[in-house]
Amino acid sequence: MLADILGVRWPLVQAPMAGVQGVELALAVSGAGALGSLPCAMLSGPSLGEALLQIQARGLPVNLNFFCHVPAPADPLREAAWRSTLAPYFRELGLAAEASVPAVVRAPFTDTIADLIAPFKPPVISFHFGLPSDALLARVRSWGTRILSSATTVDEALWLQRRGVDAIIAQGLEAGGHRGMFLTQDTTTQLGTLALLPQVVRSVDLPVIAAGGIADAGGVAAAMALGASGVQIGTAYLLCPETATSAVHRDALQSDAARHTALTRVFSGRPARGIVNRIMRELASREAVVPAFPLASTALAPLRQAAESRGLGDFSPLWAGQNASGCKAIAAAELTRELVRGLAF
Amino acid sequence: MLADILGVRWPLVQAPMAGVQGVELALAVSGAGALGSLPCAMLSGPSLGEALLQIQARGLPVNLNFFCHVPAPADPLREAAWRSTLAPYFRELGLAAEASVPAVVRAPFTDTIADLIAPFKPPVISFHFGLPSDALLARVRSWGTRILSSATTVDEALWLQRRGVDAIIAQGLEAGGHRGMFLTQDTTTQLGTLALLPQVVRSVDLPVIAAGGIADAGGVAAAMALGASGVQIGTAYLLCPETATSAVHRDALQSDAARHTALTRVFSGRPARGIVNRIMRELASREAVVPAFPLASTALAPLRQAAESRGLGDFSPLWAGQNASGCKAIAAAELTRELVRGLAF
Repeated sequence: MLADILGVRWPLVQAPMAGVQGVELALAVSGAGALGSLPCAMLSGPSLGEALLQIQARGLPVNLNFFCHVPAPADPLREAAWRSTLAPYFRELGLAAEASVPAVVRAPFTDTIADLIAPFKPPVISFHFGLPSDALLARVRSWGTRILSSATTVDEALWLQRRGVDAIIAQGLEAGGHRGMFLTQDTTTQLGTLALLPQVVRSVDLPVIAAGGIADAGGVAAAMALGASGVQIGTAYLLCPETATSAVHRDALQSDAARHTALTRVFSGRPARGIVNRIMRELASREAVVPAFPLASTALAPLRQAAESRGLGDFSPLWAGQNASGCKAIAAAELTRELVRGLAF
Repeated sequence: MLADILGVRWPLVQAPMAGVQGVELALAVSGAGALGSLPCAMLSGPSLGEALLQIQARGLPVNLNFFCHVPAPADPLREAAWRSTLAPYFRELGLAAEASVPAVVRAPFTDTIADLIAPFKPPVISFHFGLPSDALLARVRSWGTRILSSATTVDEALWLQRRGVDAIIAQGLEAGGHRGMFLTQDTTTQLGTLALLPQVVRSVDLPVIAAGGIADAGGVAAAMALGASGVQIGTAYLLCPETATSAVHRDALQSDAARHTALTRVFSGRPARGIVNRIMRELASREAVVPAFPLASTALAPLRQAAESRGLGDFSPLWAGQNASGCKAIAAAELTRELVRGLAF
């Protein structure tokens, strides 16, 4: 049973959403009997350490989520081209061409991080963009930690099974945030959840967790009908009081704009799904100029900050899946209880 | 109840698939208690008349499917650019630059067609690419015919409801063949079935038929869990003996190639989903040169014919949805009976 593997009552994972949530949401969901997640890719060492202590103090299982990309080396020419593309926006917002603000760059899972979390023996870790090295993976396993990772194609699911994960998250094209794709960067390979999930279930001998477009108990029931052992849900939690979702992001989620999301590389350098906004629209045909992951975000940070201070989400990643209809400004525990009703299918 | 509206026992519609099936598949499915469909957009008047007589002779309800696009006017310059793009392929296959073969151009629903089908008072007609004019629609209604059309967004579903359709087909991004999109040509607006379906169900007061990625009874059950009143399934039928699916198409469907489909404009001028093949791959970055719908297909026809005669599907539209895992070379009636088990949900 997936719930046993995850160490929780309900096989429902709250999707880790870097930048919009921390320990508070994770603990609220875990407190309701599902598995809350802490997105760790944008946490500094000290912040991560503090979060782990908070989780330990509550004695609840929480999934730690890490990225495992190979960071692109700095590329001054491409960075200059990117800044030059963004220059008109800097002028428009009255920012100096070389303005910068402290911005967190997404970091991969490393031995240093493993040293930090080892004493806590986390019950579950989920990875995005594949898996870390064999040696790192063996360290994680040695703690008794259960390992999850996302597959966006049947090929990726088979690859993850060969590497020995405990369960596979089948991430359908509807999902918000970064595509977990790692064997290809061709977005035409990406499948809708209804198509991906049963094909992954049929291809592997592991529990499969459905992700992408699930917004309510009906969506959960649909995933279970397709053979899922559990579900992972993110977008629906974005309005919960336990999140740090920004005001512009909340507004967008509650407007008709949320009906139109798209994959974009402009915010980070990798394809990720967010509500279509000005920068996504205006740079859609010029994504080739965007620096490699995760370097793109640094130059955007001043624009984002300046625009948000004026109440505009024009330069902010408004991450969301294709189904924001389940977003509710209610306690995460209450939302979790509504969603797990779909597991009764 | 949707089944009552459709005049059948099971609320399952066999998706019309122009070019690969005719009356035989439609009657086999209708004979099993679901609703078979006859794709009419590529039938000449005499062929359509003959098909209607065959259907009448069997006394089974069959859905007639028509396109309702406005045909693009001939554009000699664009046509020349298209032929010039294809010229290297013509040379490779030993074809004269101006080679042509008789090719059927997709035609829209017109008064002439309405004159032809009026005596038959078809029980159901489904439209693709929106709806015909008010006057034509009124004629269809005057026969007592039930009217369906496809929505690929919530906006399109609301538009169809205002025009008075009897049920809406929510066509998710996973679906094979032509996207029914008609209020926009921006493919980023297109949603996976798991996300589209519940949002359409919530937005309209009509029965909603789920389409896209449904391949087996589990998929049918999932659609029902998401609030569908019925389902439309195409790809799963492509290997049935009652279809005219070509040898190259059948081979592709049964190979690993079927795992990778994509939307392409190269075959017709409008986005449609097929198994990725050579021409889709090689012209993916040059789709701007493709003539407007439905004119693109004419110049391709000689290439397709020459390649297929050598057993190659390099220039053929290998239409398929994102989930070909349900394709079975079994009688369509048997497949239908397997699929309707999912309705028991």
